[in-house]
Amino acid sequence: MYKLYYWPSIQCRGEYVRLALEEAGAEYIDVARRSGRGMGIKAMQKFLDDEKLAETPYAPPFLKAGKLVIGQTANILMYLGQRHGLAPRHDEGRIWVNQLQLTVADFVTEIHDTHHPIAGSLYYHQQKAEARRRTKNFRTERMPKFLGYFEQVLAAHGGRFMAGNRLSYADLSAFQLIAGLRYAFPKAMKKQEPDYPGLVDLHDRIAARPNIAAYLASKRRIAFNQDGIFRYYPELDG
Amino acid sequence: MYKLYYWPSIQCRGEYVRLALEEAGAEYIDVARRSGRGMGIKAMQKFLDDEKLAETPYAPPFLKAGKLVIGQTANILMYLGQRHGLAPRHDEGRIWVNQLQLTVADFVTEIHDTHHPIAGSLYYHQQKAEARRRTKNFRTERMPKFLGYFEQVLAAHGGRFMAGNRLSYADLSAFQLIAGLRYAFPKAMKKQEPDYPGLVDLHDRIAARPNIAAYLASKRRIAFNQDGIFRYYPELDG
Repeated sequence: MYKLYYWPSIQCRGEYVRLALEEAGAEYIDVARRSGRGMGIKAMQKFLDDEKLAETPYAPPFLKAGKLVIGQTANILMYLGQRHGLAPRHDEGRIWVNQLQLTVADFVTEIHDTHHPIAGSLYYHQQKAEARRRTKNFRTERMPKFLGYFEQVLAAHGGRFMAGNRLSYADLSAFQLIAGLRYAFPKAMKKQEPDYPGLVDLHDRIAARPNIAAYLASKRRIAFNQDGIFRYYPELDG
Repeated sequence: MYKLYYWPSIQCRGEYVRLALEEAGAEYIDVARRSGRGMGIKAMQKFLDDEKLAETPYAPPFLKAGKLVIGQTANILMYLGQRHGLAPRHDEGRIWVNQLQLTVADFVTEIHDTHHPIAGSLYYHQQKAEARRRTKNFRTERMPKFLGYFEQVLAAHGGRFMAGNRLSYADLSAFQLIAGLRYAFPKAMKKQEPDYPGLVDLHDRIAARPNIAAYLASKRRIAFNQDGIFRYYPELDG
């Protein structure tokens, strides 16, 4: 039984972990979303404030697997991928999937910074002018560059999955990117999607996988909202 | 014999790999800094443009180890760390050092964005006002948060190295952070350094290691400069 520690009302970086756990059919508790003893945001904060804990995470998400506490999304996914068949068994394949996930992470940071280009501790309305400028560049340069890269990778691996014939956690992350970008930038995505038929197809195939479909239809899947990394501000959508 | 592919005139993300290779005493060619057949920036670009290469990297740095091409700094370091004794042997330790390096990577991205808060493709002078605003937040909130975290981690592991008794690549990266922040923010660092005696001591001990000292004194170490991630703009130093 895993314990996932992440903010209870947003998908954000925790969602990549949730998707992997759900696809794997792993048993887990989403700690901050539960109430009661040892649950809730307080339980998460306790870990982050524990100066005696040597392997303390810098920030959520982190996963408790037995005595092991693992922080950083890509790190958690590498651990889960190996244990649940969501990554190739050979070293080369694992290194490749980790590389993909780290590129997803870079993309996610840039997506976050579209609406928070100055500081995470300021509100969006306090950095709206800068957000508009940054997002214009994001939509026209960065989004096509990242999506074009993943599309090319997918094609080079035969079109089914990004590491070849078998699903990996990087494919689940690609699904989340497409879903999130559609929520945040509906106009821009409508325009750009035809350039990425492989990714759109991957998104649809992931969404239809039994465990993922069940997850997406459940209350465990938090809806996209205006507190997450993917946010819909019409003025940023061009 | 490794081949490292990275921009020839800057430290940036490639430097974390160079430091690991140098500490390990590994033989490597810094391809883009050499001239001749199969060398230079062209050789690097060739990899990035190769659509037939299935495991194509998104961006430099990448490392060629035999037939394996590994992209993403933290991914390269994980590979080198395991092969050259720059990471613990047990899984828990390796996961921990990877987690630290990913937190270093997050910090490095934020350092980069102090002078490029709007777009990497625009010049600094085209985003100077935004840079001033972002950097003020960086100096007062983000820098203390990251440095305070690494200081706490170091203390919790006995004060010598961040993963316990033995050096890991995360310690080499911490050295680079301190060196770079001193270059980019001399005033802010002078003020803040007393709060991080452990990190300063770690920096000094790393700099004095024979292989690292030899590297730093050699021409292989590119000097900090105004094209890198660590840049000195007095107006951003408060």
